[in-house]
Amino acid sequence: MKLGAIEAGGTKFVCAVSDGDFNVEDRTQFPTTTPDETMAQVFAYFDQHPVDAVGIGSFGPVSLNEDAADFGFITNTPKLAWKNYDFLGAMKTHFDIPFYFTTDVNVAAYGEYQAGAGRGKQNILYWTVGTGVGASYIQDGKFLQGFSHPEMGHILLRHDPRDHDFEGVCPYHGDCFEGLAAGPAIEKRFGKKGFELDPSDEFWEIEANYIAQACVNATLILRPDVIIFGGGVMKQEQLFPQIQASFVKQLADYVDTPEISNYIVHVELGDDAGITGALMLAKKALK
Amino acid sequence: MKLGAIEAGGTKFVCAVSDGDFNVEDRTQFPTTTPDETMAQVFAYFDQHPVDAVGIGSFGPVSLNEDAADFGFITNTPKLAWKNYDFLGAMKTHFDIPFYFTTDVNVAAYGEYQAGAGRGKQNILYWTVGTGVGASYIQDGKFLQGFSHPEMGHILLRHDPRDHDFEGVCPYHGDCFEGLAAGPAIEKRFGKKGFELDPSDEFWEIEANYIAQACVNATLILRPDVIIFGGGVMKQEQLFPQIQASFVKQLADYVDTPEISNYIVHVELGDDAGITGALMLAKKALK
Ligand SMILES: Nc1ncnc2c1ncn2[C@@H]1O[C@H](COP(=O)(O)OP(=O)(O)O)[C@@H](O)[C@H]1O
Ligand SMILES: Nc1ncnc2c1ncn2[C@@H]1O[C@H](COP(=O)(O)OP(=O)(O)O)[C@@H](O)[C@H]1O
Ligand SMILES: [Zn+2]
Ligand SMILES: [Zn+2]
Repeated sequence: MKLGAIEAGGTKFVCAVSDGDFNVEDRTQFPTTTPDETMAQVFAYFDQHPVDAVGIGSFGPVSLNEDAADFGFITNTPKLAWKNYDFLGAMKTHFDIPFYFTTDVNVAAYGEYQAGAGRGKQNILYWTVGTGVGASYIQDGKFLQGFSHPEMGHILLRHDPRDHDFEGVCPYHGDCFEGLAAGPAIEKRFGKKGFELDPSDEFWEIEANYIAQACVNATLILRPDVIIFGGGVMKQEQLFPQIQASFVKQLADYVDTPEISNYIVHVELGDDAGITGALMLAKKALK
Repeated sequence: MKLGAIEAGGTKFVCAVSDGDFNVEDRTQFPTTTPDETMAQVFAYFDQHPVDAVGIGSFGPVSLNEDAADFGFITNTPKLAWKNYDFLGAMKTHFDIPFYFTTDVNVAAYGEYQAGAGRGKQNILYWTVGTGVGASYIQDGKFLQGFSHPEMGHILLRHDPRDHDFEGVCPYHGDCFEGLAAGPAIEKRFGKKGFELDPSDEFWEIEANYIAQACVNATLILRPDVIIFGGGVMKQEQLFPQIQASFVKQLADYVDTPEISNYIVHVELGDDAGITGALMLAKKALK
């Protein structure tokens, strides 16, 4: 059995092939340009490396409602060339095999769920804090999804008083979670990137407060078994004890959670999570 | 087939019996006192009205984790006589029939899902705004539940600037959703009950903003097909257009939702939702 994976990001595509046990045998990547150009490279790759099924994690927003006419499309993206692009349809026209189609965040979450920091847990909340804030919730092996997929990165948060004057950078909401806490918000405040700030800078306490507040609300709404954080900003390891302490304070013991140091944790698979998850979802599509 | 229902509230218990089509044939209620006294009345009722299964919606917090030793217990309640009370165990000792045990909010949500404002929808979010704020999420017929049941009533919200000085009344968080928007918070602000305020009072705009903010965050996290509101405070019908307008403004078109007037709606079953839902869950327990 051969499994295929596509991690379709806004800046680059990664394609990979594995055996039935998810041992990666080949892997390539190329920049995301136009659908014509980029998809031609995808087709060529899997023509050369035939597989039995492909798991696809795509940048979004995407339509995941199997009953909808636009299922498998990239829909209302600001990357105009890809707006309303029938990604899954294009794959199906070219390859007569099963596909699992979902968001880029969902495939990474699934990798962590099965093989990373979520191993052995029933319900996981996965956040990535990088250029944007993305999230995925997996309950009993299934992605939480209703009218469409969650967009938890834009929940509305209260300002930290020390950060009172910062308006946020989200073009939709200004000071939503992403607008206050993702990489570009840090850059806007300081005129330099997050990794250029000192890890002991007081700002990280503010950043941790926002992330903890998002964890409090998600805990009360979802009651996950673990909350897993990845993405560029979360490479600041000092954030974890700060988030944990702020979470405990803000939740104020209102509900039980797992022991805090096992509850709010870092990803384990790092950059491999997406491809690992996509391969596992490819196998799921085969059944 | 005879079905039984128990709506176990903090102030009163309601018991009812129906045929297999949920037509209620008998119903009684009595005040919630001590477990000994109150449960004796429950036992006597179902001794007199034998049923094939009972659906139970209990005030909480309750343990709903079937693998836990305390499954079916009322756990850490401020009603001390009921703290760590084995509700389901007591029922099972007395009656050798199947039970469905869940929260009082869940049974009411299930009633609305099957027979009320959620009819025909796959995923519903149900809120009750009364003495407290309770919530339930049903996805594909199943209650959302992870480490334990949601407690969405206590999510943290940003203050409305016009309400800047109000500290909230939640003993845990001060100004969480419940602390800002449930009945007692209104009473604290005005020294009179919500139903004594004029429906044209400017305050309802503030109340609507808080409720809309909770809907925005729950929408981004859960993506429900409909959000249904019940409870005493929501009897203020002018709130609905105000919440809808505020929701649209706060969400700022970031994600699609169903058409707003069909998205944020009032309960349809009113006080019958709990018993209806409990009877339906009793039938589910029989299968
Ligand atoms: N070590 C770091 N500390 C703080 N911020 C970082 C760090 N590394 C990357 N970032 C920020 O994270 C963002 C990139 O996130 P990343 O998850 O790597 O990619 P993307 O979200 O674009 O897929 C940028 O805004 C960058 O400044
Ligand atoms: N018409 C109304 N308008 C505003 N508030 C109301 C109204 N009716 C009841 N309330 C408030 O709702 C709360 C009671 O909520 P209710 O849902 O009836 O009961 P409970 O939450 O205790 O089960 C009280 O705080 C009461 O003041
Ligand atoms: Zn935003
Ligand atoms: Zn609270």
